[in-house]
Amino acid sequence: MIYLDNAATTKPVKDISRLYADYSESGWFNPSALYSPALSVEKEMESSRSVIKSVINAPDMIFTSCGTESANTVIFNGWRRKGKEKFHFITSSYEHPCVYEAFRHLEELGHDVTYVVPGKKGYIDEEDLVKEIRPDTALVAIMHVNNETGAINDITSLSRAVKKANPDTLFFSDGVQGFLHVPFDMKNSMVDYYSASAHKIHGLKGTGALFFRHDSPLREYIYGGGQERNLRSGTENTFGIFVFQKAVSDHLSRNEEISRHLSELKEKCVSSLMKIKGAYLISPERSSDHIINIAFEGVRGEVLLHLLEQNSIYISTGSACSSKKRTYRIHDSVGVPHNISECVIRISFSDENTLDEIDELCKVTELAVERFSRYSRR
Amino acid sequence: MIYLDNAATTKPVKDISRLYADYSESGWFNPSALYSPALSVEKEMESSRSVIKSVINAPDMIFTSCGTESANTVIFNGWRRKGKEKFHFITSSYEHPCVYEAFRHLEELGHDVTYVVPGKKGYIDEEDLVKEIRPDTALVAIMHVNNETGAINDITSLSRAVKKANPDTLFFSDGVQGFLHVPFDMKNSMVDYYSASAHKIHGLKGTGALFFRHDSPLREYIYGGGQERNLRSGTENTFGIFVFQKAVSDHLSRNEEISRHLSELKEKCVSSLMKIKGAYLISPERSSDHIINIAFEGVRGEVLLHLLEQNSIYISTGSACSSKKRTYRIHDSVGVPHNISECVIRISFSDENTLDEIDELCKVTELAVERFSRYSRR
Repeated sequence: MIYLDNAATTKPVKDISRLYADYSESGWFNPSALYSPALSVEKEMESSRSVIKSVINAPDMIFTSCGTESANTVIFNGWRRKGKEKFHFITSSYEHPCVYEAFRHLEELGHDVTYVVPGKKGYIDEEDLVKEIRPDTALVAIMHVNNETGAINDITSLSRAVKKANPDTLFFSDGVQGFLHVPFDMKNSMVDYYSASAHKIHGLKGTGALFFRHDSPLREYIYGGGQERNLRSGTENTFGIFVFQKAVSDHLSRNEEISRHLSELKEKCVSSLMKIKGAYLISPERSSDHIINIAFEGVRGEVLLHLLEQNSIYISTGSACSSKKRTYRIHDSVGVPHNISECVIRISFSDENTLDEIDELCKVTELAVERFSRYSRR
Repeated sequence: MIYLDNAATTKPVKDISRLYADYSESGWFNPSALYSPALSVEKEMESSRSVIKSVINAPDMIFTSCGTESANTVIFNGWRRKGKEKFHFITSSYEHPCVYEAFRHLEELGHDVTYVVPGKKGYIDEEDLVKEIRPDTALVAIMHVNNETGAINDITSLSRAVKKANPDTLFFSDGVQGFLHVPFDMKNSMVDYYSASAHKIHGLKGTGALFFRHDSPLREYIYGGGQERNLRSGTENTFGIFVFQKAVSDHLSRNEEISRHLSELKEKCVSSLMKIKGAYLISPERSSDHIINIAFEGVRGEVLLHLLEQNSIYISTGSACSSKKRTYRIHDSVGVPHNISECVIRISFSDENTLDEIDELCKVTELAVERFSRYSRR
């Protein structure tokens, strides 16, 4: 099997058996209980929090159940304005559904939302963003790395520009595809909120993080016992948190090596695939090394996906969550014509992929594109 | 170690090593992806859903991240009325914080909430409830089993009475302490929504369920890719779901044996503890076999908790999530005077506890109560 859909999810960290053995022996207590084994669990959870925060030098963080919940929490409760009932929001037209659909809901509630379009360059332009800011703009949300194209937004500069235009406007960045892939220093930026998801970096599904500043307004979205700093209720997913911490630690211990390796994989993969007939690269110059978004004109993405699958090579046509209701919102946003959008595939790496696998992918893709073209009725 | 705080959380199922081996080999794919290994994961997830639904004969169910999220989803979006902006809600004064705090938030939003008080009998009376129903009552929420006293509410009768009084009123029951402990047939009741949490029945933390009827209105609370039947977004916590399914299956295979065992444990424990000086039983006659709520007058609950802890016996003074901000809301609701409330402990069993452990608990408790009384300055 050659797994190249790491932007959808990643294989969980190896050697979890000791972690689970420890967990089922002494790590499963309720961290809110008052006896000492429970206090140890709470302490271990706080130590996990420190490790995970350190990745982006974040002031504070709460654990959530996923990147989607983190984004919803900010969009619905990560701002608090007074004086009137409806406010203005800005986001981009190519956000992940967890951000896009949440803003659509704010519109339903009567708020005003501006969707900034990245256009052909592939990322959000500072001027395009700043000119939309109004005195009543409560929150701006611009993703760090686009989940389909891999485009990197310079959220440090964008957040500074936003605050300069309106110091009362808050800035959120969905960091699910950026966390551990693209360096970011939260304290050195003006970003108020940033989200991450464990299963995108070899953790388990069901564990997310929401990073924030102490002085950025935030109210709980899930009400109850107040477990996570009174900002997220529900018993913490401790096992997921410990695996998250392990995944982050493993990565950090080989950070540079992983970066170098991913960069090599991408370079080789792009240069080989671009030699194939009809190749059209969508990922812009400034994009994360773990994502390649490419189309082969005349070969529908789904057809290519299944042709590759016959060779046990797994890729995607776009984000997994929208795989069953395909739209071209993201590719429309970056000016890709529909005859190309329908041919798009996304190849996404983890550090476990090898150069040999890339060779195999490129070879099979070339044959598949050729074979399909031969039988095509076009 | 004698663990008697199973209402806070339970030790996860044994023999998970094969489950995790399978998961990390072939179960970790994103269930929304289009290739066949991902479709297998989706299929396994659907089979888990069927097993878990079967426990209460539920029409349908979505996976959530916890009981708290399930409750919030219903209270904020499990009803939909038109014609005016503010509606009326009814709940009980002794609900878990995930329900109580959510209703407090509905009050903040301008809705009208009535809190029905169980009083000394310990459970919600049908007449007391029905007389509060108004034409604009959108939702009634009455928990199945109280998390501190163990009291069982007859939600089948209550839901029928509510629908008789107002067919448009929806009925939710927080089933976190009832699920697998107290028999319930959802299709045979008029309950619209019911919630459960995996870690209370030997699953992992971070996995919850929300059961519902197809014709009961429900809107998503966490917006995004629409993974769970368009009612809950975010990549599903597949490993948590598989462990949830295993925990349920293990229980179902020994259902009667477990019931009998828990009933024996409780009977023995209550009769022995009630012989101790100053004992005051709070759990009413009709209460779940896995919870005993009792006080020893003159010995503060926290003191007794730590005295027992010195003997490696772990109990609680109340629900874990409110352990660090102790209030007497629940005991006030059932008419317990404050000099007793502050002495309350909760002992909660799982099928792994033994009669010998109960002997040990009772012996140590008796000595602790005696010792404390001797040195007490009262």
